Amino acid sequence: MDRIPILKMGPFLLVTIQVDLYDRLALTLENDLISMVSKTGARGVLIDISAVSIVDSFMGRILGNIASMSRIMDAETVVVGMQPAVAITLVELGLTLQGVYTALDVEKGMELLQDKIGIFEDPEQEKEGPDDSDD
Amino acid sequence: MDRIPILKMGPFLLVTIQVDLYDRLALTLENDLISMVSKTGARGVLIDISAVSIVDSFMGRILGNIASMSRIMDAETVVVGMQPAVAITLVELGLTLQGVYTALDVEKGMELLQDKIGIFEDPEQEKEGPDDSDD
Repeated sequence: MDRIPILKMGPFLLVTIQVDLYDRLALTLENDLISMVSKTGARGVLIDISAVSIVDSFMGRILGNIASMSRIMDAETVVVGMQPAVAITLVELGLTLQGVYTALDVEKGMELLQDKIGIFEDPEQEKEGPDDSDD
Repeated sequence: MDRIPILKMGPFLLVTIQVDLYDRLALTLENDLISMVSKTGARGVLIDISAVSIVDSFMGRILGNIASMSRIMDAETVVVGMQPAVAITLVELGLTLQGVYTALDVEKGMELLQDKIGIFEDPEQEKEGPDDSDD
């Protein structure tokens, strides 16, 4: 396979990783994702790894890289669907995925992203504070 | 790979096909999809084939099967992201994907599904016809 498809869903991009991320494929994914964030103005990236059962330090580093790159481009990254065994392995490898948000499934990941983006998009709502109701 | 992951997104299920659908994988996908439709009460199935560049009559038949099975379970199927070459090959093979809805990308596919489901879910809206405004 040449590249992993990236699906645009509203303000988010969705990537489902179903195959082993060998070096070239991972680099292509990084490039494609950042290009898509730039082209579409996406505010969030969802990476589904529910089909990934074996993980190594390379995979952990790639996820961290994507999150860091996306953040510079003003998009948050959420990794969803991690299998319990993968979480165990990541921690045993000493990879705590710092800077990467995680959620149990795609729906929860989308809610998390909406919360994150909502915080940044609606700062004016805080001006209409709850003290108005005291009058 | 054992199985293709199926993502639940609201009332829809999303499947991204990134690998060749050999016999056993296709049967597993059919079974998994129908089980998920039954378990989650999903009203629509989105199948993204943007990563599929080579298609044969088997693949065409599988897509038709999934659509037929889903319809019996009260869910519509939309195939999205078809590459032009795949469309050409399908027609040359004599497979016109009857009963399968298609859309250009996931977003358009979701809109199509929402339209389809809206028609079935809101029949009462037609009772409040436009003739009310003539009074």
